[in-house]
Amino acid sequence: MSNSIGTAFRVTSLGESHGRCIGVVIDGCPAGLTIDEEALYRMMERRRPGTSAVTTGRSETDKVEILSGVHERHTTGAPILMLTWNRDHDSSSYDQIKSKPRPGHADYTAWARYGGFNDHRGGGRASGRVTAGFVMAGAVAKQLLLTIGVEVHAYTRAIGGREAPEPTLDQIKKAAASIVGCLDPSASDKMVWVIEKAKTEGDSVGGVVECVCLGLPAGVGQPVFETIEGDISKALFAVPAVKAVEFGAGIRLASMRGSEANDLYIAESGIIGTVTNNSGGVLGGITTGTPIVVRAAFKPTPSIAKAQRTIDLATRSEAEINVGGRHDPCIVPRAVPVVEAMVAITLADHALRRGLITQVLGERR
Amino acid sequence: MSNSIGTAFRVTSLGESHGRCIGVVIDGCPAGLTIDEEALYRMMERRRPGTSAVTTGRSETDKVEILSGVHERHTTGAPILMLTWNRDHDSSSYDQIKSKPRPGHADYTAWARYGGFNDHRGGGRASGRVTAGFVMAGAVAKQLLLTIGVEVHAYTRAIGGREAPEPTLDQIKKAAASIVGCLDPSASDKMVWVIEKAKTEGDSVGGVVECVCLGLPAGVGQPVFETIEGDISKALFAVPAVKAVEFGAGIRLASMRGSEANDLYIAESGIIGTVTNNSGGVLGGITTGTPIVVRAAFKPTPSIAKAQRTIDLATRSEAEINVGGRHDPCIVPRAVPVVEAMVAITLADHALRRGLITQVLGERR
Amino acid sequence: MSNSIGTAFRVTSLGESHGRCIGVVIDGCPAGLTIDEEALYRMMERRRPGTSAVTTGRSETDKVEILSGVHERHTTGAPILMLTWNRDHDSSSYDQIKSKPRPGHADYTAWARYGGFNDHRGGGRASGRVTAGFVMAGAVAKQLLLTIGVEVHAYTRAIGGREAPEPTLDQIKKAAASIVGCLDPSASDKMVWVIEKAKTEGDSVGGVVECVCLGLPAGVGQPVFETIEGDISKALFAVPAVKAVEFGAGIRLASMRGSEANDLYIAESGIIGTVTNNSGGVLGGITTGTPIVVRAAFKPTPSIAKAQRTIDLATRSEAEINVGGRHDPCIVPRAVPVVEAMVAITLADHALRRGLITQVLGERR
Amino acid sequence: MSNSIGTAFRVTSLGESHGRCIGVVIDGCPAGLTIDEEALYRMMERRRPGTSAVTTGRSETDKVEILSGVHERHTTGAPILMLTWNRDHDSSSYDQIKSKPRPGHADYTAWARYGGFNDHRGGGRASGRVTAGFVMAGAVAKQLLLTIGVEVHAYTRAIGGREAPEPTLDQIKKAAASIVGCLDPSASDKMVWVIEKAKTEGDSVGGVVECVCLGLPAGVGQPVFETIEGDISKALFAVPAVKAVEFGAGIRLASMRGSEANDLYIAESGIIGTVTNNSGGVLGGITTGTPIVVRAAFKPTPSIAKAQRTIDLATRSEAEINVGGRHDPCIVPRAVPVVEAMVAITLADHALRRGLITQVLGERR
Repeated sequence: MSNSIGTAFRVTSLGESHGRCIGVVIDGCPAGLTIDEEALYRMMERRRPGTSAVTTGRSETDKVEILSGVHERHTTGAPILMLTWNRDHDSSSYDQIKSKPRPGHADYTAWARYGGFNDHRGGGRASGRVTAGFVMAGAVAKQLLLTIGVEVHAYTRAIGGREAPEPTLDQIKKAAASIVGCLDPSASDKMVWVIEKAKTEGDSVGGVVECVCLGLPAGVGQPVFETIEGDISKALFAVPAVKAVEFGAGIRLASMRGSEANDLYIAESGIIGTVTNNSGGVLGGITTGTPIVVRAAFKPTPSIAKAQRTIDLATRSEAEINVGGRHDPCIVPRAVPVVEAMVAITLADHALRRGLITQVLGERR
Repeated sequence: MSNSIGTAFRVTSLGESHGRCIGVVIDGCPAGLTIDEEALYRMMERRRPGTSAVTTGRSETDKVEILSGVHERHTTGAPILMLTWNRDHDSSSYDQIKSKPRPGHADYTAWARYGGFNDHRGGGRASGRVTAGFVMAGAVAKQLLLTIGVEVHAYTRAIGGREAPEPTLDQIKKAAASIVGCLDPSASDKMVWVIEKAKTEGDSVGGVVECVCLGLPAGVGQPVFETIEGDISKALFAVPAVKAVEFGAGIRLASMRGSEANDLYIAESGIIGTVTNNSGGVLGGITTGTPIVVRAAFKPTPSIAKAQRTIDLATRSEAEINVGGRHDPCIVPRAVPVVEAMVAITLADHALRRGLITQVLGERR
Repeated sequence: MSNSIGTAFRVTSLGESHGRCIGVVIDGCPAGLTIDEEALYRMMERRRPGTSAVTTGRSETDKVEILSGVHERHTTGAPILMLTWNRDHDSSSYDQIKSKPRPGHADYTAWARYGGFNDHRGGGRASGRVTAGFVMAGAVAKQLLLTIGVEVHAYTRAIGGREAPEPTLDQIKKAAASIVGCLDPSASDKMVWVIEKAKTEGDSVGGVVECVCLGLPAGVGQPVFETIEGDISKALFAVPAVKAVEFGAGIRLASMRGSEANDLYIAESGIIGTVTNNSGGVLGGITTGTPIVVRAAFKPTPSIAKAQRTIDLATRSEAEINVGGRHDPCIVPRAVPVVEAMVAITLADHALRRGLITQVLGERR
Repeated sequence: MSNSIGTAFRVTSLGESHGRCIGVVIDGCPAGLTIDEEALYRMMERRRPGTSAVTTGRSETDKVEILSGVHERHTTGAPILMLTWNRDHDSSSYDQIKSKPRPGHADYTAWARYGGFNDHRGGGRASGRVTAGFVMAGAVAKQLLLTIGVEVHAYTRAIGGREAPEPTLDQIKKAAASIVGCLDPSASDKMVWVIEKAKTEGDSVGGVVECVCLGLPAGVGQPVFETIEGDISKALFAVPAVKAVEFGAGIRLASMRGSEANDLYIAESGIIGTVTNNSGGVLGGITTGTPIVVRAAFKPTPSIAKAQRTIDLATRSEAEINVGGRHDPCIVPRAVPVVEAMVAITLADHALRRGLITQVLGERR
């Protein structure tokens, strides 16, 4: 496994769905950052299941313990270990997936990768529960970015084919998302409806999460290989169910003319900007100073309340599986803070590498 | 800059558009691989400009010199340096972009990143010419993968909105691409037409390149962060003009139901497969054993034969630029082998990390 | 900070002397290794203080909790988090070192590095207590190496100028070390005497720990930069108080003639060996197949029961400090398993990179 | 192989002794550094053979070509490729070592590591010739460090058992080394004598090179694993023939008392210093601000003009080898700039990581 990401702000994920804990280690967070635990908990709360009718009924408390690297509410420069303890789970319902992999899940691939020694209970390392650790790290990354005035906001753009219009900068900054993580009330209603319909029919839906970063200056990024786009996309594909990532006008750029796609430069009072933002704030892997705009497409939750064809790994013959239990009919609402976390982690790393965040954030003591 | 990618098969890119050379260093290629220079040249040839009416008239010979790491036609286990020498260029036409960045190019961001010390001539490190080095490394990666029966094939799926149908496995394996890199003759004609039309109108078009990997077994990938999707996408976003990356059914999955999206397992004579391949051959960041399918969307070439608004960096006031010279009205045809190279580099790295390729490929001497 | 080491077997250290816990994360341990918790505890016990008259009276229980990555006694391929909880400490005695750095300790340098935000209590991250985490990882590394028949043994070669003779292979394998970690009873007595004498006089002594690795075949190592010697020495310099590292005949080689230093090759029944082992089992950064022999020199414990000159960081004027508390008059006996751990961690990493340890150690389940 | 070292200032070594070229790629050198080619050539000249009676008669021109990353005498932020072309060699004299490894050389271990596919001619990658590339990178690192007033100086401390006294700061700064790289004329004469005596007798001698870094402030280093000592030692063990590395009082500290070893702090006009420098300028892996002092012990050149026992790899039976050709009877004089290079490379990397060197060194253009 390769459970670390980032160069200067290095995040290591750990824990399993039904193991003792889920957590994260951050190595490289500069000393002197004041940790806002309230903000951390609020971000965790957005990811927590059971907070609305459209998410799984599984109850997680997600109380986070900070076990190292923070002393008297400040980071010390040492590795920060953050954990949330798993409650006791009844893992017996997962016995069948040891031999009969659920379609669309990572049961089969994890079995192939780890020779059957992987902790299969609840999906193990491939479970969405692992993203609780991502959010812990993301909350710290966001706080680090805030010290230089950089904000990261994610929200839902589509669920089950119901799309929300592009939000205004005001809406983004206000960040008053609905229970499906959407900034548009009307689209939100349709999204709730499509999720509930899928749920009723024992099915699931996917969607699109968009994330915007405001305030990062031009000149951040490490081409040719450690580009802003490349590093954000790598981070986003670590989120279960993400199958596509696009920046700015994204896939639509493939059908545009150059004269339409190019973002023309303008200068107002000496500040350089662009008329449009089709590039999504990145050119040549380096930030332009305009908002970074990225979208991640999520496939529908693979766990559905229907019998599905699968195979029996022991006999290598065909079989059937019926995945019971309480599952999110749509993972997108809870994935919103996870996308935000991954983008924040990546940009905190790049901001540090670029020297934008000075080593010691507070006053020397 | 961060010009290296990969862990076990580590590729370092170097050289500038109008500098002395373009090249690449591969560190980690196992000893004993027989280098097929003919195959290397054929792959370079597919990227070379001036080979058809739809590419730039700039002439590059792209003869590759292998300067280290290969002895008596075998890799030695030492770093492989491969170079192509740049011809003398007239760089004077690029003087204007030192102060007036071309819209859609990386001129402004590179200036911001490197404080104006970047080699701006011909776009410097951000030039498409740099991808010649990617192809050199990709050719070696493909040969390494072939030793375990793994093939990587890229081809054009769309140009300027004209789409080609999904090719059959036979078409993919035959790899008889048209001058626009497309496997479908009829779609190909439309693509040529749309490029020529854009060229006539002093404009440009983008498109979509698809890449398929055949033969990689289940169980390759290093989740949670070094996933097959994450590492391929990171590699692809290093290719100039790529703005979106998707796997399998990709963005369309966001609108599907789970019951439709899940790839059901089947077993034939003990071989495990799936009915559909919406996942694009990857679940939980690990290969399923089905073909890996990835698509990269390219924006239109930013260089167009029209006056465009820009700014003057010295005065920070608005200005106009007219990018002359001979440019590809569509980069997609020449980008096909580059996409193939980046996918091959990533998968060679993962195959090595997974232990699929034994250390010494040939017989001990 | 950079608290991770290794490429394939990647160890991340965390925790502070007086924080909540000391621990380690191992990422990259193959799935299927049976964890022998008894062996882990025995190795921890060798490092534990208060086990003999020659070590500090501070009581640590060092009970290790394995919080992730192990399921039903087998590694799962997921990150392994191991922790030992710190007891409540009275940290008030450390208040003075916030402004008056102890000579020979890292108080001043950590203050300079982390702007005064470092957790100074008990030395924080620079405390010898942090090496408890190293031993946890080392215990797993040793178990991993044992699966391919590789043993790692460390023992004391000198304390306070009293040297033990080179042990025989039998003595090394028996590993019946005295309370000072020495394999020679007679030298051991002298070492105990010199430690007790220093202790009585309120002073401290240093010494030399030797480590031998048996059973690693020829051909392991990644030159030119990731050599066996380079990686072992880097790992050993992470152990507090190490100031010199040498391999084989080490520093004495600088005074030898080539005809004396060269290890001549011999072959017995087709097995290639050498007459002498001046190289310490490594040539050109790669193992020769003979035992790897490395020695680390430890400076005397900086904490002594004498008033010492220092400076006041607030006023930048001279001051005096009297380090109270119970300290090891000699750290060497307890450092023996730490050296063993660092060598085992490094060699487990190289064995994995070389493909010597197959991915799945047990049978597929 | 792993031919890259460093994190922020990343150096990749390439080339073989009898291949086309020897070179290096530097990735991460900030844009805007003025390259002093004269200083580069002077440093190369110190490593060049044939410049005195005590080195090999092999003639190398070592003219360096800078092929990328430098434009109009300034670094651009792009990878810097530097090469020296190898002359045509008669490699036939090396045919015997394909099957009969030279004692003390890496012939056998490279054969074991690379399955016999390694380029054995002249020792291939394990040849001292490869260090020409180290010096190229070291010269750039030294120039980078000079921009913040940091100097790195290496010199010979011992050859064949003849030791030079510790030089004064003045002698170090003046850097007027003798033909054996020694700062003391009297010791130098004895060293010349001992080398010539060994040469006459068909034998070789080793020695000790010391390196001092002046001007680096307190607070540089990345514990717990990426310490100044750990990273310097790792870099030094990449130099062929190094078998021991020590800092400050080094191995002698193992026999000292704490009261003697501790460097007491003093403050003069607010500047913090120490009375002694037994620590060699590093505590807890972080710089103290006093000079960094490191010594590397070199074994005698393995190539001697005497018949030696070896084995025949094909038959695995015993054999004899007589290594002809012109070899350095002592590598130490030519290794001095190589040690200097490795220390400079490591410290440039750490200075960059610590933010001591601002991104753009010159004025924005």
